[in-house]
Amino acid sequence: MSTSSRRVLVAGCGLIGTSIALALRQRGHRVWLSDMNDAHLRQAEQQGAGDAHRGEHADIVVVAVPPSSTAEVIAAHLNQDEDATVTDTASIKAHVQRDIEQLAAAEQPPPDTARYVGGHPLAGRERGGPQRARADLFAGRAWALTPTPATRPAALKDARWLVHECGATPVIIDAVDHDQALALTSHVPQLVASALAAQLADQPDDILELVGQGLRDMTRIAAADSALWADIASGNAQPLADATDALAGTLQRTASALRDGTGAAAVAHLVDAGRAGLRRLPGKHGGEARSFIAVSVVVRDQPGEFARLLTDTAAAAVNVEDLRVEHAPGLPMGLIEVFVGPEAAATLRAALASRGWTLIDDEPVSEE
Amino acid sequence: MSTSSRRVLVAGCGLIGTSIALALRQRGHRVWLSDMNDAHLRQAEQQGAGDAHRGEHADIVVVAVPPSSTAEVIAAHLNQDEDATVTDTASIKAHVQRDIEQLAAAEQPPPDTARYVGGHPLAGRERGGPQRARADLFAGRAWALTPTPATRPAALKDARWLVHECGATPVIIDAVDHDQALALTSHVPQLVASALAAQLADQPDDILELVGQGLRDMTRIAAADSALWADIASGNAQPLADATDALAGTLQRTASALRDGTGAAAVAHLVDAGRAGLRRLPGKHGGEARSFIAVSVVVRDQPGEFARLLTDTAAAAVNVEDLRVEHAPGLPMGLIEVFVGPEAAATLRAALASRGWTLIDDEPVSEE
Repeated sequence: MSTSSRRVLVAGCGLIGTSIALALRQRGHRVWLSDMNDAHLRQAEQQGAGDAHRGEHADIVVVAVPPSSTAEVIAAHLNQDEDATVTDTASIKAHVQRDIEQLAAAEQPPPDTARYVGGHPLAGRERGGPQRARADLFAGRAWALTPTPATRPAALKDARWLVHECGATPVIIDAVDHDQALALTSHVPQLVASALAAQLADQPDDILELVGQGLRDMTRIAAADSALWADIASGNAQPLADATDALAGTLQRTASALRDGTGAAAVAHLVDAGRAGLRRLPGKHGGEARSFIAVSVVVRDQPGEFARLLTDTAAAAVNVEDLRVEHAPGLPMGLIEVFVGPEAAATLRAALASRGWTLIDDEPVSEE
Repeated sequence: MSTSSRRVLVAGCGLIGTSIALALRQRGHRVWLSDMNDAHLRQAEQQGAGDAHRGEHADIVVVAVPPSSTAEVIAAHLNQDEDATVTDTASIKAHVQRDIEQLAAAEQPPPDTARYVGGHPLAGRERGGPQRARADLFAGRAWALTPTPATRPAALKDARWLVHECGATPVIIDAVDHDQALALTSHVPQLVASALAAQLADQPDDILELVGQGLRDMTRIAAADSALWADIASGNAQPLADATDALAGTLQRTASALRDGTGAAAVAHLVDAGRAGLRRLPGKHGGEARSFIAVSVVVRDQPGEFARLLTDTAAAAVNVEDLRVEHAPGLPMGLIEVFVGPEAAATLRAALASRGWTLIDDEPVSEE
């Protein structure tokens, strides 16, 4: 345990709260747990996430409760735990900040909002419950922190410590900017995926047979939960409306160009702009995207074929960077793309070819 | 060789034409090749796709040339090859049909358009050249055929034979319906992917760190070629404009609802509609989607770790249905989801756990 250890109370033992607690326990820190749901609390305790809180003083309180009660629970802890830093995990930040400041203006004594730092770990999965928690849920993830000019530096330092101890990377950002960013990077994509998928609902069967991998990739997240997204969207209504309108506007201008005979230029411009945007996405290691080679292998859907490919790939002893399965709808076969560094492609190709696999020549692709 | 064998001339030795020729040769059929580009023709010959055409009579002519010259080449072959069936591979059908009929009205002698059947194999990859051709490019794929009421039944029979010999599944559809369907299933998704990616171009770096897997999946096809898509979009301008406006309209109505306080209901409705549409997508085997279990494994990005997982998965001897890599940007680890049938999940989990892998509990997911 390092000298900078903090004692942490995690309020809310869902997936996120329990995962934070597990991460901190793994690093040897003292963790207390609380939850209005006794079953969740016991489950988290049994998983080794910490001990039930009985009023002990914590240095940091992490509020990981549903969005609708986040501000209230934060305010309560700011009052109860006199010099503790309080942070939270709600995925929308501006209205939490606003609600806390309103509570501070109305309550006697006013909670000390300078000890609150908004937080949002981008954990990447929405399915919940403490039984799905794991200590490495945040490893390598971004974790937004949204201090205000009034935030005490010691509180931000505590919040940064928490993020680092969970293995995540802090992204310091204004709460309003955060919500605008999430509208762009998460909420609009969800609406678009759902809208694209919704268009398929009343199409005849033969049209659905014409759906390729592109649309499948783009509608994967359309399997999302509607109640969850109703909450998220209404909690970020204005930024989401603006970002949605901006995207719709781009699409409508392209449609107009297609109607007035300037469609080719408009589409070329849009696709070029998309390539430019795509290049800005961080690569797997957080740095510049690097080139991988896709070694593409034809796999028949017979029992053991996929397993045999995995064995043969493993035997080649190259560092596999990614693996992608492209299904062939309707027939028992598929194409598997094994991504490796340029230096390893020839080795892998030779190894697989020598074991009888059908390979397809591919060009280098850029990791997105 | 079956008694129903046809002699085929493939006009155009790019990826698609050469792949068709290879598929037919593999089934033992006589294939001639032609291409204005001598290097392509020789390359295709060297790959065993057939012999250079020297005026021999073909039963079927497959026109696989760039879209801009497709109609002209079809008309020329309808005149040259007196009783041959002529088909093509252009990805947009209505304007090819229209152009051919215009040529038929203008030319003396008029080409016999009743021997033409429009075709569009949905081959799934856009990168071209004969060296990337393969005999199984169309295996399990849909292949649209767009006969008109005037099409001779024997010509449609020839076209169906061609599709079957290439291992594909014919989807008989009106040319106009085809183009509307492709607008929905392929062209609008491309514009949307590009528009989503384009929005990232001028964002500050910290916002790009907040991009998750959902948006990455949705912008994968934004890496497309702008010249190719300018051609496709302008060749299908009206249906694409209509479908794009329809999607933009859905998004704008959602944005309006978010502004007038009814956003939660509107978003819930949209997400539910998306789930309904998603359920209609054919599963891997062309039938109803079936449930798989995702066995999720934490993999550290050390040399050999991915390979070790592949070995251990292969050793479990279960039928792997799919495999998905979820990267953790910024840190050297990722989550690998191995999809198996419900009956195999326990076996795989036990096998991997016994070899020391960290597994995450997952719920059944529906294959899209």
